[in-house]
Amino acid sequence: MNDDEQAIRELVATWHRATAAGDLQRILSLMAEDVVFLTPGRPPMRGKEAFAAGLRTLIQTHRIESTGTIKEIHVAGDWAYFWAQLSVTTTPLNGPPTRRTGPTLTIVRKQADGVWVLARDANMLTAETPA
Amino acid sequence: MNDDEQAIRELVATWHRATAAGDLQRILSLMAEDVVFLTPGRPPMRGKEAFAAGLRTLIQTHRIESTGTIKEIHVAGDWAYFWAQLSVTTTPLNGPPTRRTGPTLTIVRKQADGVWVLARDANMLTAETPA
Repeated sequence: MNDDEQAIRELVATWHRATAAGDLQRILSLMAEDVVFLTPGRPPMRGKEAFAAGLRTLIQTHRIESTGTIKEIHVAGDWAYFWAQLSVTTTPLNGPPTRRTGPTLTIVRKQADGVWVLARDANMLTAETPA
Repeated sequence: MNDDEQAIRELVATWHRATAAGDLQRILSLMAEDVVFLTPGRPPMRGKEAFAAGLRTLIQTHRIESTGTIKEIHVAGDWAYFWAQLSVTTTPLNGPPTRRTGPTLTIVRKQADGVWVLARDANMLTAETPA
C-alpha cells in the first residue's frame, strides 16, 4: 500500500471517529470547500456550508456510529476514487436506533498542502428492514 | 473543452442512443471488463457479464428512453469522473411507463487504445412520485 492509499484510509477512519465524537469542525476539515454530496431522492448538496448546516443539528440530537469496508482505492495523480460498503446507526436521544447500509463511491483530492480531502460522494445507503 | 472531455461526452451520448435502440453489444462495448455498478438496496454488480445478463432481458421486454445532463467532468490522465442528473423512462410491452430520476457519479478510464470506457458507476435514481 503506498503513502497516498494509506492517507486516504486514514481520512476515512478519521471521518468515522469524528462522526462518532460529534466533532463537526473535525469532519468539516476533511472535505473540500466545493464538496458535492449525491444521494437518492434529494437534490445534490453543494459546498461545505450546506453540509455543516444539515449535520450540525443531527449530531447535536443523535449519536451516530458508522463502520465501513473499503473495497477498492485507485489513485490517479492528485485525485483518487474509492468505493466502500458502509453501515451507519443513528440513535436519537429518546428513541430507537435506525441502521442504514449500502455502498458509497467517493472522489478524494490531494490539496496543494498534500492533505487528502473528500471532494465528491455518492451515498447509496438504505434503511435496513427489521428482521 | 479538450479532446478527452469531448470523448467522454460522446461515450455518454452513445450509451443513451444504444440503450434506446436496445443494442446490447454496443452498450457492452462502452464499459470495462471489470466494471462495477453500485446502486441502493442491491449488492454491487461486478463485471460486464453480470451486467449483460440483467440487461438482456430488460431490453427485450421494455423500451428504455434516457436523458441526462452532465454537471461536471474532471479528467486526470487516463482517468476521469463525472456526475450527472439522469432520467430514465422504462416502458414494458404492455403496461404504463415508469420514470426514474436522480444523480449518477461515474468513473471512466482511457484504455490503451485511447478509447474511454465506463469503469465504476453509482446510480442514485429513484421512482418519481406520480403528480
